[in-house]
Amino acid sequence: MIAVAERINGMFKDVRKAIQKKDPGPVIELALRQTEQGARYLDINVGTAAADQQAAMRWLVEVVQGACKTPIALDSQKLPVIQAGLEVCDGRPVMINSVSGDAEKLDVYMPLAVQHNASLVALTLNVDGVPQNIEQRVEIAMTIVAKAMEHGLDPTKVFIDPIILPVTVDQKQPLYICEVIKQIKTVLCDPAPSTIVGLSNISQGTSQRPLINRTCLVMLQAYGLDAAIIDVLDTDIMDATITADVLMNRIIYSDSYLKSARM
Amino acid sequence: MIAVAERINGMFKDVRKAIQKKDPGPVIELALRQTEQGARYLDINVGTAAADQQAAMRWLVEVVQGACKTPIALDSQKLPVIQAGLEVCDGRPVMINSVSGDAEKLDVYMPLAVQHNASLVALTLNVDGVPQNIEQRVEIAMTIVAKAMEHGLDPTKVFIDPIILPVTVDQKQPLYICEVIKQIKTVLCDPAPSTIVGLSNISQGTSQRPLINRTCLVMLQAYGLDAAIIDVLDTDIMDATITADVLMNRIIYSDSYLKSARM
Repeated sequence: MIAVAERINGMFKDVRKAIQKKDPGPVIELALRQTEQGARYLDINVGTAAADQQAAMRWLVEVVQGACKTPIALDSQKLPVIQAGLEVCDGRPVMINSVSGDAEKLDVYMPLAVQHNASLVALTLNVDGVPQNIEQRVEIAMTIVAKAMEHGLDPTKVFIDPIILPVTVDQKQPLYICEVIKQIKTVLCDPAPSTIVGLSNISQGTSQRPLINRTCLVMLQAYGLDAAIIDVLDTDIMDATITADVLMNRIIYSDSYLKSARM
Repeated sequence: MIAVAERINGMFKDVRKAIQKKDPGPVIELALRQTEQGARYLDINVGTAAADQQAAMRWLVEVVQGACKTPIALDSQKLPVIQAGLEVCDGRPVMINSVSGDAEKLDVYMPLAVQHNASLVALTLNVDGVPQNIEQRVEIAMTIVAKAMEHGLDPTKVFIDPIILPVTVDQKQPLYICEVIKQIKTVLCDPAPSTIVGLSNISQGTSQRPLINRTCLVMLQAYGLDAAIIDVLDTDIMDATITADVLMNRIIYSDSYLKSARM
């Protein structure tokens, strides 16, 4: 499981303050700590911490790149902010997070991903909103894959996000997401596209967020999930996801597997 | 998930001693504590604690029945020991644990289950041993279901155990077990038979037994597992399995779901 570490986000107070004061210290520390804990990508999200989001994205990317060699995920709904991040990327693997499943948006983001040799997170939502069922999610996933082929983006570099809804909203959704992942991994194309979830949405408004997050993650991994945006500083969720990788035969068991998988 | 509580087993020192001294105290305490922690069945296994296993089974069943109203699972590979337990059962739900998938054995155990209105755990193994693949496990499951129909045992009272092998033996096995459960739950018959696993085998010889056990359990639940023989006194595994039930839409979410699911 590719752990995309969520903490470098202007929605968190410490990062917001660091952005506003141009203080690299807390960002460097988060980059290093998350890397040590097994992050495969460091998500970078300016949030609402700065009026000039493009400048803030450039600064964050440069600070993180100066601190470690970990790949980065540029996280914004605004194309200029993504582009600002891409401009200063130093050639390490990069993920663009994210674009909706609307054809006209994909026609902009897919060439951008190809040009920068980046991976691209594409959400199974469109102008009509987030589908509540399996079929419409898979339908949008098909549009995404077709667009990737049209623009020459390797399907494995497309990370389709089926969009988890809070379990408090509809308890049928988690199993739907399992089934969508299964279908994306087995019937859409060969090689299959990658799959990703923004995990924490599942536990919005619940009393047991970390427990629900890690339990849901293990279930999704059992259906073939490739990546998730999670709090890698939560030891319990990292232990769970690494153990699921062993049980899915994705990493080899050894008595020290929890440690070696984080390196 | 039907939690079958594993602790009243003569393989554990405290229970062995209680059996040998005919001291009901520790057995009563385990019956009550396991029930409080959410056990749906109390497994009763004499182990090697007594020369007269039938007398020991009778004694254990009577002690447990005097302590609480929780259903019981009579656990032995020996038919006379199972029969001894059945003789003293007071009419509460009872599970016979277990019989192999050999036709001649099923022809003995199925009528016994019908006669006592009991559920029956049937293993997907036969004289040739434990199958290592999906197909042979499902084939034996089909034999089990056919025998249940022949003898008039409600398929939902048949708990098919696909037999988990240690992850250290073959890392492909957990996903095979997921697939076997899926097939048993969807293609064998309608209503589908129930499924059960003796969970702890998955982590034999590993350095992280509780973590591997609970992670495996959640994966199997995502594929429709109905029951597992587990340590219900392990708070973490109970929290995980109850949370998986919420995410599978098997129990309704409330902020106090961890507590209410145990009652």
